[in-house]
Amino acid sequence: MTSRGQFITFEGTEGVGKSTQLANAADTLKTLDVDYIVTREPGGTPMAESIRDLLLAPRDEPVNDMTELLLMFAARAQHLHTRILPELEAGRWVLCDRFTDATFAYQGGGRGVPTERIAQLESLVQGSFRPDHIILLDAPVETGMTRARHRGELDRFEREAVAFFRRIRQTYLDRATADPVRYHIVDAGQSLEMVSRDVVNLIDGLVHRS
Amino acid sequence: MTSRGQFITFEGTEGVGKSTQLANAADTLKTLDVDYIVTREPGGTPMAESIRDLLLAPRDEPVNDMTELLLMFAARAQHLHTRILPELEAGRWVLCDRFTDATFAYQGGGRGVPTERIAQLESLVQGSFRPDHIILLDAPVETGMTRARHRGELDRFEREAVAFFRRIRQTYLDRATADPVRYHIVDAGQSLEMVSRDVVNLIDGLVHRS
Repeated sequence: MTSRGQFITFEGTEGVGKSTQLANAADTLKTLDVDYIVTREPGGTPMAESIRDLLLAPRDEPVNDMTELLLMFAARAQHLHTRILPELEAGRWVLCDRFTDATFAYQGGGRGVPTERIAQLESLVQGSFRPDHIILLDAPVETGMTRARHRGELDRFEREAVAFFRRIRQTYLDRATADPVRYHIVDAGQSLEMVSRDVVNLIDGLVHRS
Repeated sequence: MTSRGQFITFEGTEGVGKSTQLANAADTLKTLDVDYIVTREPGGTPMAESIRDLLLAPRDEPVNDMTELLLMFAARAQHLHTRILPELEAGRWVLCDRFTDATFAYQGGGRGVPTERIAQLESLVQGSFRPDHIILLDAPVETGMTRARHRGELDRFEREAVAFFRRIRQTYLDRATADPVRYHIVDAGQSLEMVSRDVVNLIDGLVHRS
C-alpha cells in the first residue's frame, strides 16, 4: 500500500524567490526518488486557472473584498477536491505555490478582511485539512519588491503599496510563530546559494522523516 | 429625502416566464412613475457577469459543488455591494431575475448541498439583507421544460433531469410556505394573460403599500 503524499506549500511576499525555490525543492524530491507534482494557487486546474484570470485582470470596476475572498476559495475548492487530494491519496507529494496562509496574509493582513471570515471559509472548504508543511521564504519587503520589478509589468496585487506588503509579511511571521511545527521559516534575504542550500536541507529532512 | 427603494426578486424553475413577467412588472412601475432598474443573478455588473460566464460554460472538468456555490456568492457579493444597495439607497426599486432563494432551490434542493452551508454564506455575504418581496412563478415542471426547449439550446443547468427540477420547485414552495409575508406565489400554469394580470395587480399593490 502506498502511503499518503505530503502537502508542502511555499509562501512569502513578492520577489522572495518562491518559484526558484519551488523548482529547487522539486529537483531535491526527484533526486530522492519521491513522486511529486508542482502546482499553484489560485489555479492548478483549468477551471481554477480561469478564476485566477478573473482575479488578476486589471478592471475599472472596483472589486468588493468579499467577492475577492469568495473567488479565492472557489478556486481553492476546485483545486483541492479535483487535484490536490487525489494526488496525495495516490502517494504523490504536492508542492504548491501559495495556499490558504496567503489568503490570511494578503486578504486578512493586507486588505483588512476580518480573520474570522477567512477562517470560516477555510473550514467550509477544507474541513480540518491543512498543509503538512509551510515553507515561508522571508525577506524585508524592499528586497522582494526590487527583485519583482525586474521581472516586468506588475499585476493588480503587486501594484499595491509597500505598507501593504509589510502587513502581509508581518501576518506570515505571526502565523509562523503561532504554528512552529508546521511552519519552516527560510531567510530569503541571504544569497541565492544559501537560500537554496537551506531549502534542499529542509526537503531532505522532511523526506527522511516521512 | 428620498425613501429607500424596494428589492423585488423573481424566482421559479425553467420556462415559467420569469423574463416576460419581469418586463411586465417593469412596465407597471413605469406606468406608476416609480424609478427602477432591472437586473439579474448571477450577474448584474461586468465582473459578476464574467463569473456567470464561468459558471454556465460547458466544460470537461467536473465542477465541485462547493466551487459552484462560492462562485454564486462571489457574483452576489459584487452585485449586491456595487449595484443593488447603491440603487436602493438612491430610492430606485430593483427588479432582479433570481437571488439567494435560487441558490437554496438549485444548489440546495437540486444538487443536495446542505442548506446550512448556503445559509452560512448568505449571512457572510448579505448580513441580514433579504429581498423585500419574492415573486415565485410556480408551474408544474413539465410545463416549464416544454416552454424552455422551444427557446433553443439548453445550458449546463437546463440539461439536468426533470427530477432535479421537481426538487427545485418543491424547495421554492417550502420556502414560500415558511415565509408567506415575503413570498408571493403566482400561478404560472395559467394563460399568459392571467399570469400577467396577477403580476400587474401584485406590483400595483406593493407600490400603493410602500
